[in-house]
Amino acid sequence: MIEDWDTFLIPYKQAVDELKIKLRGMRKQFQQENTHTPIEFVTGRVKPVDSIIEKMQRRQINEKLLEADMQDIAGLRIMCQFVEDIYQVVDLIHQRADLEVVEERDYITNVKPSGYRSYHIVIAYPVQTVHGEKKILAEIQVRTLSMNFWATIEHSLNYKYQGAFPEEINERLKRAAEAAFMLDQEMSAIREEIQEAQQLFSYGKGQ
Amino acid sequence: MIEDWDTFLIPYKQAVDELKIKLRGMRKQFQQENTHTPIEFVTGRVKPVDSIIEKMQRRQINEKLLEADMQDIAGLRIMCQFVEDIYQVVDLIHQRADLEVVEERDYITNVKPSGYRSYHIVIAYPVQTVHGEKKILAEIQVRTLSMNFWATIEHSLNYKYQGAFPEEINERLKRAAEAAFMLDQEMSAIREEIQEAQQLFSYGKGQ
Amino acid sequence: MIEDWDTFLIPYKQAVDELKIKLRGMRKQFQQENTHTPIEFVTGRVKPVDSIIEKMQRRQINEKLLEADMQDIAGLRIMCQFVEDIYQVVDLIHQRADLEVVEERDYITNVKPSGYRSYHIVIAYPVQTVHGEKKILAEIQVRTLSMNFWATIEHSLNYKYQGAFPEEINERLKRAAEAAFMLDQEMSAIREEIQEAQQLFSYGKGQ
Amino acid sequence: MIEDWDTFLIPYKQAVDELKIKLRGMRKQFQQENTHTPIEFVTGRVKPVDSIIEKMQRRQINEKLLEADMQDIAGLRIMCQFVEDIYQVVDLIHQRADLEVVEERDYITNVKPSGYRSYHIVIAYPVQTVHGEKKILAEIQVRTLSMNFWATIEHSLNYKYQGAFPEEINERLKRAAEAAFMLDQEMSAIREEIQEAQQLFSYGKGQ
Repeated sequence: MIEDWDTFLIPYKQAVDELKIKLRGMRKQFQQENTHTPIEFVTGRVKPVDSIIEKMQRRQINEKLLEADMQDIAGLRIMCQFVEDIYQVVDLIHQRADLEVVEERDYITNVKPSGYRSYHIVIAYPVQTVHGEKKILAEIQVRTLSMNFWATIEHSLNYKYQGAFPEEINERLKRAAEAAFMLDQEMSAIREEIQEAQQLFSYGKGQ
Repeated sequence: MIEDWDTFLIPYKQAVDELKIKLRGMRKQFQQENTHTPIEFVTGRVKPVDSIIEKMQRRQINEKLLEADMQDIAGLRIMCQFVEDIYQVVDLIHQRADLEVVEERDYITNVKPSGYRSYHIVIAYPVQTVHGEKKILAEIQVRTLSMNFWATIEHSLNYKYQGAFPEEINERLKRAAEAAFMLDQEMSAIREEIQEAQQLFSYGKGQ
Repeated sequence: MIEDWDTFLIPYKQAVDELKIKLRGMRKQFQQENTHTPIEFVTGRVKPVDSIIEKMQRRQINEKLLEADMQDIAGLRIMCQFVEDIYQVVDLIHQRADLEVVEERDYITNVKPSGYRSYHIVIAYPVQTVHGEKKILAEIQVRTLSMNFWATIEHSLNYKYQGAFPEEINERLKRAAEAAFMLDQEMSAIREEIQEAQQLFSYGKGQ
Repeated sequence: MIEDWDTFLIPYKQAVDELKIKLRGMRKQFQQENTHTPIEFVTGRVKPVDSIIEKMQRRQINEKLLEADMQDIAGLRIMCQFVEDIYQVVDLIHQRADLEVVEERDYITNVKPSGYRSYHIVIAYPVQTVHGEKKILAEIQVRTLSMNFWATIEHSLNYKYQGAFPEEINERLKRAAEAAFMLDQEMSAIREEIQEAQQLFSYGKGQ
């Protein structure tokens, strides 16, 4: 048994704190350069101990393999305005030399049966502790505001129903996911128009 | 001319900092008490100087009346999961003894022609400066995540088009607003079901 | 027995968060106005639960009277450069309309036998909770950097010895307190010279 | 001429934000492990633009060499309780794999003529920007609370006199530095006693 969870979680807390500062720094840099920022906002959290224990039991994760087998003890979330921004953010994360991408799951191309959409990246991130370097896993979820809106509500319903999810609510959630999806598509369509409009404008100025 | 904007804006910055802490404190309290929190997250900002000057010119606001006539120099935003939560938040703000509600605009019942929805509250908030108390105005916008999603994107498009908004994009934005509205309705419908389901559950347990 | 300390401490945490923002705001205002700021930095904390319980036992404080009898559950600390700044800070706190001074102890004029020096102010501060206003007590300690330096070290020694404080260390701590006191006096002496020098300078410019 | 200082300073701001989180994390880890923490608190700042320009002129630093020749544009400060802690902190910084020590100046062994004492470490720190990695220099100053107290006041006097430092104040500052030094020595002496006392205690328990 892990007796001292607080000590176990120290490097995870540290990683979340550092990664929040680093990912928010990317947003600031785009803003400073007056270009469209693909990052709207960034949140982060360490998984609460009771959720870790519940997930260990549900997935039969051995405590000795906890660090390697549970990839979302440290969790970051990046919200974007447009679906297209998500893939730019994914590229930017790949380019960073201070972390290593170890796994990716594209739940945008492959939407989950529940209607869940997001891009998940699992990274290995080195934390410097007072006893030396420790590499920990962290999960970064990249999603639009609309995907986040849906996922936030689905999560709170899920929490309330604890698995015993009525079919009718399931159906409604799926319809809501479709509405959220259409909202994203509508927005992406406008995005293309903006870019066309801007190109025309730049062309006109060049005359 | 206001020569020293930094000095002028000090009490506004202070008010925003204090109100962020206060409104986020309400969220923490609901979480601590394990009840549904009507507040999902809170943001705040002081209007940038160039936006203040641009708005003064556009609305012909006299500099001497700036403090009284521009109500959103200090701005707070409260995001909710459900439309119903908005009205609970509005009630909670009315109950606070550390501020005074001076004006309210319900753009949820009365949607703006653009499709914009939000509940706006203008408050008078006393800031203690080293030269004594100063009452300043602040605007609190209360909205669902879905309303916020739409408004964020409309704002960034508006910024890019600077008034010269093409009709086609206008139309698409309205359709997007309708999609966002339907998403909120779908969510509210589920909310009612949750509450019914929970009541049945409690009733069952009481047997 | 208080069963849920987290819930009990919520308004205290809230008060500490708000007061930190408010007292730091005073510092920012002096800096903005380019005048000497009497506040160097501000810290705050809620007393840990085990310290509260230990103090209740030691001082035989009845749980029902805890809120009224333990005045430092919420604690703020203001550090100043000069001894003279302390009294200016005390005046500034008295002038604020958002709190009420209920008690003061001047351990600078009346140094504690241990050598401890600081100005303590107990305030009543109204916190707005979602169930209405709640007035809580908070203790503000105002001290120079030198007093703080000594007190920090004395506190960590005290913590280690748990009351069983050897006489020799006691003696050395007192000598250290005297050194800290002389450092403050040396600094105050220079402060007067600075002000004289500045007045001469202003007078010269006026010619 | 550097035209856009805000853009130039972005990686420096980012480095300061990241290093504050990292150095404060070391403190948290010691606290969590219930061992004496050699770090009391950490502050950080980016040098203001007018100070950078003033220093470039004073030291005749060519703008093209600014990044390499001005080592304190990004500045961190670590405060310790005991002089001995400083050297432990220096060791801990050397052990980190996320930065490289490029220069060290021990103004504790080699006190400056003014009376200034501190341990300075210049590091090369890689910042990940959206255009790739950028290595920047940062200066970490490690000092006791007492050294910091003296340095803070000397700095504010220096700022006021702008070089035209009267001899009498100079003398008084030196006496104050000596008082601060004695305070540190007194404290170190107690530290050794504490450790002896603790060893005796452990030995006694071992019987």
